[in-house]
This record gives sequence, C-alpha cells and structure tokens, in this order.
Amino acid sequence: MSTTLKRRSFASDNNSGIHPAVVAALQAANAGDAVGYGDDPWTAAATARFRQLFGADAAVYFVFNGTGANVLGLSCVLEPFQAVLCARGAHIDVDECGAPERAIGCKLIPVATPDGKLTPALIAPHLTGFGVQHHVQPGAISIAQSTELGTVYTAAEIRAIADVAHAHRMVVHVDGARIANAAAALALPVRAFIRDAGVDVVSFGGTKNGLMLGEAVVLFEPRFAERAVYLRKQQMQLASKMRFIAAQFDALLAGDLWLANASQANRMAALLARRLGDVPEVAITRPVQANAVFAIVPRAIIAPLQQEYFFYVWDEARSEVRWMTSFDTTEADVAEFVAAVQRAVDAAAVR
Amino acid sequence: MSTTLKRRSFASDNNSGIHPAVVAALQAANAGDAVGYGDDPWTAAATARFRQLFGADAAVYFVFNGTGANVLGLSCVLEPFQAVLCARGAHIDVDECGAPERAIGCKLIPVATPDGKLTPALIAPHLTGFGVQHHVQPGAISIAQSTELGTVYTAAEIRAIADVAHAHRMVVHVDGARIANAAAALALPVRAFIRDAGVDVVSFGGTKNGLMLGEAVVLFEPRFAERAVYLRKQQMQLASKMRFIAAQFDALLAGDLWLANASQANRMAALLARRLGDVPEVAITRPVQANAVFAIVPRAIIAPLQQEYFFYVWDEARSEVRWMTSFDTTEADVAEFVAAVQRAVDAAAVR
Amino acid sequence: MSTTLKRRSFASDNNSGIHPAVVAALQAANAGDAVGYGDDPWTAAATARFRQLFGADAAVYFVFNGTGANVLGLSCVLEPFQAVLCARGAHIDVDECGAPERAIGCKLIPVATPDGKLTPALIAPHLTGFGVQHHVQPGAISIAQSTELGTVYTAAEIRAIADVAHAHRMVVHVDGARIANAAAALALPVRAFIRDAGVDVVSFGGTKNGLMLGEAVVLFEPRFAERAVYLRKQQMQLASKMRFIAAQFDALLAGDLWLANASQANRMAALLARRLGDVPEVAITRPVQANAVFAIVPRAIIAPLQQEYFFYVWDEARSEVRWMTSFDTTEADVAEFVAAVQRAVDAAAVR
Amino acid sequence: MSTTLKRRSFASDNNSGIHPAVVAALQAANAGDAVGYGDDPWTAAATARFRQLFGADAAVYFVFNGTGANVLGLSCVLEPFQAVLCARGAHIDVDECGAPERAIGCKLIPVATPDGKLTPALIAPHLTGFGVQHHVQPGAISIAQSTELGTVYTAAEIRAIADVAHAHRMVVHVDGARIANAAAALALPVRAFIRDAGVDVVSFGGTKNGLMLGEAVVLFEPRFAERAVYLRKQQMQLASKMRFIAAQFDALLAGDLWLANASQANRMAALLARRLGDVPEVAITRPVQANAVFAIVPRAIIAPLQQEYFFYVWDEARSEVRWMTSFDTTEADVAEFVAAVQRAVDAAAVR
Repeated sequence: MSTTLKRRSFASDNNSGIHPAVVAALQAANAGDAVGYGDDPWTAAATARFRQLFGADAAVYFVFNGTGANVLGLSCVLEPFQAVLCARGAHIDVDECGAPERAIGCKLIPVATPDGKLTPALIAPHLTGFGVQHHVQPGAISIAQSTELGTVYTAAEIRAIADVAHAHRMVVHVDGARIANAAAALALPVRAFIRDAGVDVVSFGGTKNGLMLGEAVVLFEPRFAERAVYLRKQQMQLASKMRFIAAQFDALLAGDLWLANASQANRMAALLARRLGDVPEVAITRPVQANAVFAIVPRAIIAPLQQEYFFYVWDEARSEVRWMTSFDTTEADVAEFVAAVQRAVDAAAVR
Repeated sequence: MSTTLKRRSFASDNNSGIHPAVVAALQAANAGDAVGYGDDPWTAAATARFRQLFGADAAVYFVFNGTGANVLGLSCVLEPFQAVLCARGAHIDVDECGAPERAIGCKLIPVATPDGKLTPALIAPHLTGFGVQHHVQPGAISIAQSTELGTVYTAAEIRAIADVAHAHRMVVHVDGARIANAAAALALPVRAFIRDAGVDVVSFGGTKNGLMLGEAVVLFEPRFAERAVYLRKQQMQLASKMRFIAAQFDALLAGDLWLANASQANRMAALLARRLGDVPEVAITRPVQANAVFAIVPRAIIAPLQQEYFFYVWDEARSEVRWMTSFDTTEADVAEFVAAVQRAVDAAAVR
Repeated sequence: MSTTLKRRSFASDNNSGIHPAVVAALQAANAGDAVGYGDDPWTAAATARFRQLFGADAAVYFVFNGTGANVLGLSCVLEPFQAVLCARGAHIDVDECGAPERAIGCKLIPVATPDGKLTPALIAPHLTGFGVQHHVQPGAISIAQSTELGTVYTAAEIRAIADVAHAHRMVVHVDGARIANAAAALALPVRAFIRDAGVDVVSFGGTKNGLMLGEAVVLFEPRFAERAVYLRKQQMQLASKMRFIAAQFDALLAGDLWLANASQANRMAALLARRLGDVPEVAITRPVQANAVFAIVPRAIIAPLQQEYFFYVWDEARSEVRWMTSFDTTEADVAEFVAAVQRAVDAAAVR
Repeated sequence: MSTTLKRRSFASDNNSGIHPAVVAALQAANAGDAVGYGDDPWTAAATARFRQLFGADAAVYFVFNGTGANVLGLSCVLEPFQAVLCARGAHIDVDECGAPERAIGCKLIPVATPDGKLTPALIAPHLTGFGVQHHVQPGAISIAQSTELGTVYTAAEIRAIADVAHAHRMVVHVDGARIANAAAALALPVRAFIRDAGVDVVSFGGTKNGLMLGEAVVLFEPRFAERAVYLRKQQMQLASKMRFIAAQFDALLAGDLWLANASQANRMAALLARRLGDVPEVAITRPVQANAVFAIVPRAIIAPLQQEYFFYVWDEARSEVRWMTSFDTTEADVAEFVAAVQRAVDAAAVR
C-alpha cells in the first residue's frame, strides 16, 4: 500500500520534502562533534533568531512534531483540571489521538465555527463553571493560525480573543503549524499577531514549511517557561542531537526563507483556486487565505483523481475535498493538477 | 554556554554527527513528494530490513528518540497498575525525567546490580505481590543491551531472564539504544539474543549509531502490536515526514553498516582502555565490552581535561568518569585523548 | 455559607439522608473486628445480592462515589487512546471535573440529544476514524439510566445501542447513579435492561437512593474484570473498612428496598409535576419518567423560592430549573413545596 | 474465604469497627436534608475543629481514604516531573498500587531506613539532579507519622527534615494515617510537630482511629490549597453527602476523642510488647512507640496462630510479624492474645 508519488502532491504540505537550504544547513551542521541536548551553537543561533522575531526574553523549546509542540505548550500553561476551548475540528481536538487529554489530563471543549475561527461571541457560552468544583475550569483558548480550514485570523481578531481570555484568567495558545502561511497572508511581523496580540504560547511550525522535521514552542511568561524544560523531556520531545533540529530552523528563519516558502505556498493556493474557477463542476467552499483550497467536487471524480494524486476527502457527505499547496508547488504543478481535475470531470461526464 | 567541540568528544555517542551514508540516504529520500505518516516506500523498505533481522511477522514502529521508544514499547505491553523491574541507574529509571511513570502510570522498581546487568537471582526478591490488590503487579523486566555501564548480556543470560519473566506472566523489554554495540560484541545475529532469547519488545537504537535521529520499537506479539499505532501517535512520536527517519534506518541496516559502525566504536573503546593502561593514575573500573570506558581518575585532572574534552563525571564520590567512543572515533582520536589525559595527570602531579 | 435545610430539599436526591434500614445495617455491621478490604462476610453477602440481580458470574466492585464508579468501570473496558460517546450534559462529561480524561486518558465525545438519550441515529455520525492512527478510536458508548434529564431508556432502546456498539467492537457503559429509578419506572428486572440488553459494565448507584455513600461497579466479562481489582486500588476507591459500604448495599437490596425507595421518589416526582399543572406560570419541560422535574418558571420567582428551598437552575437562559424528589419525599413535602411555588408566583405577580 | 473474626484482631487498626461516639454522630447527622458536597453545617464544624488544631488559615479537604488523602495532598504541591523521597516500605511506595505515579505522574524514590524514619543524612544522597532536564526534580519529602514500623518522629526530627526540604525548595508531606498515635506518643499538640515543624501538607487519618471512613488533607499554603478543590473532585474523592464524613471527624476531634483513642491503642501496644517479654521465643524487633508491635517468632507458630487471629507476616525471610492494636483493644484482648501466642509456642515445641 506504500505509495511513492510520481507528481506533486496536493494532499498536504507535509507531503513535501526538505527545502534545499535546509538540507544544506543539515550538512553544514554535520561537522564534527557537539554536545547533546541543546548545549550547542546551532541551538543558540536558532534561539536567537526566534528572539529576534518575538523579543529577547522569549523562551524557545525545539521539539519533534506538531502534536508534541501543542501538548508541550499547553502543558506549560495548564493545570490538569482545566479545559481548553478550541474550534471544532481543530488539530488538537481531532488529529492528535487524544494526546492533550492523555498527557495533560485536561478536557478539550470544541466550539462549532463557520470558518475554523473562534470569536469572543462563539467563546462566550463556554465561559462557565468558574469556581465550581464539579466542572473543569476553562483555562486556555487554543486557536490555529492559519486554521485547519485555510483561514487566517487578523491581529485584531486574536487580540479580541486574548482580551476575553485574560479577563477570565485564561491563556491563549496558538497552534502555529502553519504560522508562516498566516504571517505571509497578513503581511505583518509575526510578533504583531502573536505576542503583541496577547498570545501566551505558540507552536511555531517548521515541518510543513520545508523542514525535515522540527517545531518550536515559544513562551513569553517566565512562570510558564520554567516548567518547559522538564516537561519537554518527560513528554519525550528532547532531541539528543538537537543541533540538527536547530540548524534547520536557523536556515528557515535566515533571510526570511520561512516567509518566502509560505508566500509561495499561499500564492499557489490562490492560483489553484483561480484556475479551478474555470471548472464549473468544482465549487470552492471556503475563503482561500493561506495554502488550503476546499472544494465540493462531483463525487465521481474523486477516486479516479486519487489514482493520479493522493489527497484527502474532507467531508464525505458533502463530497468536499481539501487540496493543499506547499513551498515547492510550482505554477506548472498547479496547471498539471487542474488539467487532471478537468480530465476527471470530463471522463465522469461521459459515463 | 553553548559549546562547539574542537576535538572528538568522548562524552557520549550522541555527540557524534551523522554517518555519511545516512546523509546520502536523507538526500536521496528528498526527491519529490511522499505520503506522510509512514505510507511511503522508505518506511516499507526499512521495515523490511527489520523483518530480515527479526522475522517476517515483527511489527516495527519508528519513533523520534530513545525515551520515546522505551515508553512506547513498555506502554504496549503493560497495564498502568503494573511495575517494571530494571537495573538501578537504567536510562528508563534515571535519565527519562519520569516519562514512563507519567505516560504509562506504572512504577519502576530499580534493582541494584554490580555491573548494570540483571540476573534471575537479583530479580527474584522483587517477584512478589502477585494478585494482591494493594501492590503494583510486576509486569515487565527491562534490561539495557548493551548496558549503561558498557557491559553486554550473553544470549543465555537474556534467555534466563526471559524464562523467569514468562514463568510469572511478565514480559521482557530491551532498551537497545546501543543494541548494535551488543550485537557487534557478541558476534551474534541480533535475533539470537533478542527474539530467540525470549525478548518481547525492543527499542532498537539508531541515534547513537550514526543517525541524525530515529529509533525503532520492534514487537513480536500481535496482541501488543495492535496498541502501538495509536499509542505512538498519542505519545507524540509519529513523524509526518516519516520517510526521513525510515530512510536513515534503511541506510544503517543496508550492508550491515549498523554493525560496522558499532564494531568501530567497540574497537576504539577497547583501544582506549588498553592505552589508558599506560597511565597508572587512571584505573579502569568496569569490563569494557561495548563502547564505554569507566575509570577512576585523579580528581585534580577532571576540570582541566574537561576544558579540552567535554565528558561526564559518573560518580562524583569515587571520582569515576565515563568516556564513550562512537562510530567515527579514530585511532588518532584515541591517541590524542590519551595524550591529553597524560598531560593532565602530569600537570596535576606538578602542582 | 454552609446551609442547613429546614425543609425537604428538592435540589437533588443526594441532599437526602440515610434510609433507616441502612442506618440499622451500619450499626449491625459495627460488631467486633473484621478483615479489611473486602474479605469479610458483609462484602460476600452484598456481592451475592448483586449476583442474584445480574447473574452468578457478575463481578462486583464497591467504590465510594459515582464519579469513582464511572471512572473505574470505563477504565476496565478502555484503552487510553479510545473515546467515549455520551450524551451532551452527561455527568461524566460535565460534572466530574474531567476525571475520565485524567484517569483514563480517553477523550469524551458529547452528542447532542433532545432528551438526554442517545440513539443509534444520533450515535452514527460519530462512528468514524476506526483504524486511523490520528484519531481516537471510538471505544465505548456511555448512557445514563435514568438520564440526567429524568428520562428512562426502554430495554429495547438500550439493546439497539448495544447492537451498534458491539457491531463496532465497542462496549456499553451505563451510569446507573439512578438505576433504581429506571428499574422502578420500567417495572422490569434490572437484568432485563442491563445485562440482557447488552450492557457490558454498569455503575450501580446507592448514594442517591438512601445510602450514606457507596456505589458498585458491575462487570460481566472476565477479561474486563481482571483489571478492576488493581484499578480500584490505584484509583483510590478501595475502602479499608469495606464492610460498611457492603452492609449498606446488603440492606438496600434486601427485600427490594432499592426499588421501594426509587418508586417512592418516582411517584413523588409524578405528583409534583401533576400538582405544578395547577400553576400555569410553571411549564414542565421534559417527560417526568423518573425522579426529576424540569420546568420553566418566571425568572422573578427563582431567588425568592431559593430562600426557602435550595435548588439548581438548569438553564439560566431559558429560566429552566430542576427539581428532584428522593426516597424520603412525602406527599406533604410536595404539597408544601407547590404551595411555596404558588406563593412565589403570586408575590412576583404583585410586584 | 470471607472471614468474620471471632476475637479482637491484631492484624491492623483498620480491622476495628466504628467508635460509638462516631456512630452517634452519624445518626445525629442523619436529620433531614442538607446541601451536598460540603456546603453544610457539619463540614463547617469539622473544618473549624481542624483550624483549632492547625491555625485559622488551614485549608481542610475531606476525602474517603488514606491513599486518596496522600495522592490529593501530594498532587497539590507537586509538578508531574517532580519526585517524592520517602522511606522504603512507605505506604505511598508499596501499598497504594502505584496511585501516586499514576495520578500525579511523579516518581517515588524510596530511601532505605533502619526504622522507617528518614533523616537529613539519609536524604542527602538523593538531593541531586536539580536543574538537569534529564532527571526528575526532587520536589517533596514524604514521611509517615507514626511510621509504618510503629516508630515516631520527634518534632525536632521533622523540623530538621523540613529545613533540608525548604533549603532545596522542596515541600514536606506527612502521611498521617496514624497521626493521632504520634500525637499521643509525643504528648505534644499536633501543630507542634506538623505545621510549626515546617510540614506543608498532611494527610490526617480518621479511618484507623475509630471512623467508619474518612481522612482529611490539611494544607497551609494558599498557593497549594487553591488546586485542592478541583483536584479532589477530579481524583474522585469528593463525597456528595459530605456531612457524613464531616460529622465523624467532628465527633472524633470533640473532647479530644482522637487522642484518647490513640492513647488506648498505644498503651495496648506497649502492654502487648511487655507481656510478650514473658515469651522468650518471641523477640520484639522494633521500638514500640505507637500502636504496632513487630516480632520475630518461631516460623512454626504462624499458621496455627493465624487460625485464631488473622495477622500479616511482615518479612517472610526473617519470620517477622506485625501486630497492631486499636482504639478498642482491651487489656483482656491482649492477655487472651498473648496466651494464644504462648499456646502456639508450646504446641510447636511439642512437635
């Protein structure tokens, strides 16, 4: 069943490989010996780059993957009897096999949203039970930026959520597996919509933006950060040869490669959506603000198209699919894919 | 405080970099897109190699690091009210920040050993409390092969432990972070001292033997293995771009590179021990069977020597240090290091 | 703020005291010494009574409280990566401070219901993700009998749910904190709508039906039961002087006192609902099938009435309150309470 | 196998029944309805009594059993990556089926002691690893007062331990399942050897001193106490009809019944030890400072004596047994028991 893809995948941005500059950085870091577990110059350099983005007092912890980043970040800011409000369908809620509940003990409270984005109004009904011993205590609001539906919060929208959170002594967590796509879409310094918007802890994604693997947990409050170093180890997220994660991030953040990569992915998603406009049988279903395109397609084209391109059906009932672009998606890739869609539509019409 | 090492480190085998063949494999795997999470040809190929080693029905799960491998493996075979017997000083007991207790709920019962190796006689006093509801139920015996003290179990010694375990309906777990060093030392097929000796689950180490990162959990019982796929994800050990871990293992196991690497490390440890025989102030304290050398040294040489070579003091009270060799340690490295030891001894004598 | 109630409470059936026969049993059990932790004649006797109800091979574990019973029962049948489907608003979901998530690691998936009762149709959309490593695996369907909304499942309704569960290799858990009220309402042997209807594990409530404290977890599958004895201890639910919980249950089950108690509570709830029919300002909102009465009341009467009778507002927005009857509620209590409601309504009208 | 004991048990103080004054209090509390979960006058009264003992700002949480008290108390003061130092053989280490590890995530580090009592010197070697991410962080020192071996710490000994703990930013936990026996033995106000000696959190036992069931967790630091109310619920230790636990404690603490009960138990243990002095075949092995008597006995008498009196063999290898007295042990009970021991010795000699 193992699949090697002949063509560019539009299934997920994690179907891509490693950006050449990151490969080069890995090779450069493979020079002689280095002390393990982060006491090395690459980790220092990558940390410094994050501090340029977020402030000199930001605490930065490199981890292996996105679930690890989300769990570590949340575990630094939560008690086990607290709850996390998140959008229904959020990665932490449906794609982490219950890791937050298991590792932290907390309850996740999913909130239905029209577009993957929480708002103060959507959150409000769930801000209950404070001080009542029978109930989990709302402790964090977790948002994805960009969201699992390819939408992007504005800085003001995040600020509004943070104000609600802080007014209730809660914290704000951002699942930034695709934070670069959001930054590129907003054309804002990342600090403007994260730290300056009131976010307390962020998972800063690397894997989906050109790394082989690696995410960073960034915290702004010392009282949260002091737990992180032990929790990272206990949660099995401490790399012994840390330099090889750090070096990747160092390369990604150098010269704003992370923004260039994300911009390319975003542009290709916009292009894909535009080109699909020429296929009337395909209806784009959500705003294309980052690097995801959702569309309702004729049910009959899904299987034939998946023969050529692996991708995920998002909502079986609606025949809605998700296509994602990546840092290495090209205009030619998009053209070839749209042509394949058109062929599949035509073939379906004939039958 | 970050340290770049000018010389070959004798601190730990995880201070080494990546073997060139592994780097080449990473680069080769970076060709186009691939489905994530293990449904790719590299994962299939690496899994096949493990099945050549352990049998066609072995279940193989790639994870990020050694703690992750140990916790995943143990969690597949244990109930949360069970206990793990291990050697006092075992990595799972003292170097994983309590990850097994936290992630599984189990209790670890450390057993004092003279040489890092458990025996049926050492285990016997702890085989108590079966069926008594107040007590954790002994569920697993976990051994390290090679051990944290650089010693190696024979196949017969493991068989004897497994017989005891199975007689009590317990299972045997092997922390094989350095399993290659053991295989090289024993000059036996790895299956002979693992599966054929009665081991139920093994952490097969890659990181300390030339990988950038990557370990494999190998299980032989279907009833254990069916939990693994979900527990790996829940324990935050599922790589999205799995191919890049698998490709490393594929390269490591190809042409027995893993054994060549480990043999080199072992040979260099033996050489180091032999050469240190010329320094009468340094007393080797443990059998050098794998790639670790333990020695009691004049207390006065430790700090000066650490200026040149980062390494760990193992037992402050006894002035005992640990030096480790790696796949890339050379005879020249050893000679240079022994000369530095000699210089430090001489300098200390002068003062 | 501590409150002693001058009148009969209609707040909850746990506001009642201990039934006199149960007090007598406690006193009778207080005769000399007995071995602790359940190896005593009272525990044997109470266990035998449960086996008369559920079958000679039922496994019975006494615990302290309802949350403890639910968590123990679920933990016997679940893996930590599994999920529990339950009605939104179920006690396990909203009134146990996240104990299931914390103690088991599992995720709870609340399903909206019109009346507190799950159905195969409501469950169906959540039977997804089987075999997909990213997703928690649906493992149990948990229903309350009677429900938190005072409704009662028929045996056929439970059978239908169990058939769905078992078709998906899932199990059925019943939160029977008020199982006696359901049995009384259905006028069926409890086995008919539990074991014979396909239920795998049940929390059998005592505290809300006349005990000082005490619940029983009853399991029908040996493979689940063998975990229970250790999990009960590990989950801090093993009473040392077990005889005093067992003796209470022995008294409760003797001569069907449990059914008599529940019948009285149910009758008083029906009476209360009937009498409230004379107060047009009060609208009963849910079928009164067990011992709970839900009503929308003029917002202005709530605070004044709470001065006389402590009770809970169920839904602030709708001005819906919950009133519960108990084994010791009398017709006079009901009459007195309805009169108080009428007075509050009259007083509100005047203002 | 269930056993009703014809004679007074010397197996454990939890083999006793309920003190008559406590039974009376239970009956008195069974008067009408009361709000659940602790918002009742009995809980207020019992809390006030604890505050008389420990200070007006003590936070008091009633729970069901000793394991629950220890776990709740420790969980209020610990992070999951911290470790608890305790005496080897401590109840939390060997008699709670791993509840602390499971519920908190922490590691227990047992320290060998000659007499069940930790000392700064015994603790010192374990005060390591602070600040090192690989290692669990020593977070609490847990002592039992009186100990599982029937010994009692002086106030100065506890003070010395607390000084060590606080110097390392650790806290001190007391498992006071038998705190009354210690208070009676020391003839000191309990505050003198608990709060004033630097203890941060204590499990105050009731069950072993005449209650049907009930323990109290007492905390002195607001920052720890604010977690307790939610953790108690989440750990399944919140009684709905709380008044019936509180009323028992109210009776136990009134008129110093708790001290009278414990004094009687202690006196009977001293008497038992003295009388056994007349049986030369029986050698008392440990100081009799509270209500436990340990003795090495002829192996041949154990089984015959257990026919008459259920008790536990403490150390099979040494043929050492544990006998415990209780609040209701009488001089006649002791005489009768010693006579039985003598008979068993005589009978064994004949064979």
